[in-house]
Amino acid sequence: MRDSEKNFVLHGTVVYCKSAEETEACEDAYVVCRDGVSEGVFEELPGEYKDMPLIETEGKLIIPGLVDLHIHAPQYQFRGNGMDMELLPWLETYTFPEESKYKDISYAKKAYGLFAEEMRNSATTRACVFATAHKEATLELMEMLEKTGIISYVGKVNMDRNVPDYYVEDTEESVSATREWLEELKSKGFENTFPIITPRFTPACTRELMEKLAGLAREFGAPVQSHLSENLSEIEWVKELEPDTSCYADSYVKAGIMDPLIPCVMAHCVWSDDVETEVLKKNKVFIAHSPESNINLCSGVAPVKKYLEEGLNVGLASDVAAGSTTSMFASLRNAIYASKMRNRLFDSNIKPLTFGEALYIATKGGGAFFGKVGSFEKGYSFDALILDDRSIPTARDDMSAIERAERFIYLGDDRHIKGKYAAGRRIL
Amino acid sequence: MRDSEKNFVLHGTVVYCKSAEETEACEDAYVVCRDGVSEGVFEELPGEYKDMPLIETEGKLIIPGLVDLHIHAPQYQFRGNGMDMELLPWLETYTFPEESKYKDISYAKKAYGLFAEEMRNSATTRACVFATAHKEATLELMEMLEKTGIISYVGKVNMDRNVPDYYVEDTEESVSATREWLEELKSKGFENTFPIITPRFTPACTRELMEKLAGLAREFGAPVQSHLSENLSEIEWVKELEPDTSCYADSYVKAGIMDPLIPCVMAHCVWSDDVETEVLKKNKVFIAHSPESNINLCSGVAPVKKYLEEGLNVGLASDVAAGSTTSMFASLRNAIYASKMRNRLFDSNIKPLTFGEALYIATKGGGAFFGKVGSFEKGYSFDALILDDRSIPTARDDMSAIERAERFIYLGDDRHIKGKYAAGRRIL
Repeated sequence: MRDSEKNFVLHGTVVYCKSAEETEACEDAYVVCRDGVSEGVFEELPGEYKDMPLIETEGKLIIPGLVDLHIHAPQYQFRGNGMDMELLPWLETYTFPEESKYKDISYAKKAYGLFAEEMRNSATTRACVFATAHKEATLELMEMLEKTGIISYVGKVNMDRNVPDYYVEDTEESVSATREWLEELKSKGFENTFPIITPRFTPACTRELMEKLAGLAREFGAPVQSHLSENLSEIEWVKELEPDTSCYADSYVKAGIMDPLIPCVMAHCVWSDDVETEVLKKNKVFIAHSPESNINLCSGVAPVKKYLEEGLNVGLASDVAAGSTTSMFASLRNAIYASKMRNRLFDSNIKPLTFGEALYIATKGGGAFFGKVGSFEKGYSFDALILDDRSIPTARDDMSAIERAERFIYLGDDRHIKGKYAAGRRIL
Repeated sequence: MRDSEKNFVLHGTVVYCKSAEETEACEDAYVVCRDGVSEGVFEELPGEYKDMPLIETEGKLIIPGLVDLHIHAPQYQFRGNGMDMELLPWLETYTFPEESKYKDISYAKKAYGLFAEEMRNSATTRACVFATAHKEATLELMEMLEKTGIISYVGKVNMDRNVPDYYVEDTEESVSATREWLEELKSKGFENTFPIITPRFTPACTRELMEKLAGLAREFGAPVQSHLSENLSEIEWVKELEPDTSCYADSYVKAGIMDPLIPCVMAHCVWSDDVETEVLKKNKVFIAHSPESNINLCSGVAPVKKYLEEGLNVGLASDVAAGSTTSMFASLRNAIYASKMRNRLFDSNIKPLTFGEALYIATKGGGAFFGKVGSFEKGYSFDALILDDRSIPTARDDMSAIERAERFIYLGDDRHIKGKYAAGRRIL
């Protein structure tokens, strides 16, 4: 794409967040993209932009692209199944058998092809993706995601213990395959798709493995993603496996893979206590809140409002296939649902998420993992969705822009996406 | 429609519930409709049905039509808005102002037209519907629903206290308008659409009003619907308003409107204690479980599994607009979500709903309010949906019929409905 194609103006009803507390709504507004970067939102188009191509959305909603901070690409195939199980039996019954299929590259091509196509058509513009332990299949997935135009980090998964024999890796082989994968990527010339070091989670990774992966993260300048404090049984298990740690997160710190100098996403943090929360803050960790997954696996619900108030980095995630759907619209409403249930049924001291707060974590909150992403403020990478909310019937003609956006989160789906941009490139 | 058109055979993958514990799944099966009534499900088509028209679904899922036991037609217009509020402020801000608009029959025609069209295209085959206090608008809604082919009870709402001046009724006028409405209906000749006596809820209805409505229910042989024990503040309020009652439900019993001889649906029952549960059992009340509404208004979550185990009648409901969507597929997954959160965050003694139990309440559980409805067992009214689940992508080719149905509840929507029948009549 020539850079000239990344220069344009969208005209419509613009809704975006400046912070968790500030949601901006501008009817009949202009948002300007120059070289893939937002110049800001304007009620009247300044003269300097008047020669740029104007894309008229006829009053449609324009919101920042949604950021999915945690999704398992191979699990896409069995999403929506096994929902009567909790985490550990669900891993044994569905996850490990399905993921092991990706050693067969022809299966990987077929299955990842379906996944990539759905991601292209989804509301997601940025994602942090788990692949499987297989290097070849992971490269295939990255090729496919690259072509969608979505901007993503993708990780070859590492695991050398407590995984069935048919899928577990040898420690040295896991490290060497990861190094080869990182080396091969250098020649690919991807513009949208980047590697992320991906130890599955502490129960599946020896400290030796994680220490070596931390070395690769530093050597290749790659970020890290994993899971943390999802389920009470899992947390007990980590205490047994890693007795010298102060909390689950400390198992990553002690291995050197959770470090303020290595960008890091940790999925879940449902049960992180004050000790762990301090560790997350100190290490600038991004929490990938996965509300439908929290619910489906009966894990509990992460105290997201508290994390926001404490200044932690929080993004939103679908966590397919513990979450059933890739739809970040669904993740948004599920985040609100889960926070309300947590407030009413468990801890009334932590308030539910408002619509604005949920939209914030789904855009600017998680977007910060990618840099200046998730807002239309000047200088932010131009990720945007054009949404046809008005085809969702109502007799009301007095809805505010905020009401339209709130309603969309409950009633909208991929049918209503009429445009999608990542870093100024049109994807849909 | 001639009765001959209600005689046919569907061939496909049939999933239905015999009880909360027994979900039947038959691939490559025949379900027979004779005179609008199911003859049962067969692996091989018996000779006696071989002359009936065979409708080949090519392996699509065939499930019973879904029953929405509680939905507010006028609230459809603001569904998905005001979700940051609890019950009582939400009523004042959104509900009463919108409902009062239906005194204008031209608005009612426009708004109810949108509602009826969505209901026609939805997964709902039977519904219990609240209209507004306006007799003319309620008749208009009934005309429209009649034409959709959906089978419904529709109620003109009654309320003579604690409602804003612009919408409250005088007690006598409320009763006389209800009588006129019931009289006028006699000449309409509706086949699908029936009246139901609808006191809004105890806080909005004097005992005098409810006693007179109980008289109308008996005189006209109409069932009753209302709300019960949704929200803790509401329950406290009822104690103040009706000090001689043993529980909220007792306010309906003392008025004679909750009675074993009057079929009755009560929405919510989130906080019904043992005393109230006994009242519900004794009076054969149907509980309309409204999970998304429970969540959205931060009411709590009804202990549905406990109610099922205790042998109470439980159905499922969208409760638009406290629930955002008319989709009973969404209600199904929300029922599972809510039960899991209740189990994990509030009371681990009550297990989550399984997929089969949720499907049961959405079909046979609520269907029982309409008679033999909600199953394909012999003698049940033929309500059915034909669902194209296989257009939802996956690389798996080994899913069981139950897995297909479970997956559909998480990923399916109205796009996937390829056929819909109520009492043997084709609607879609």
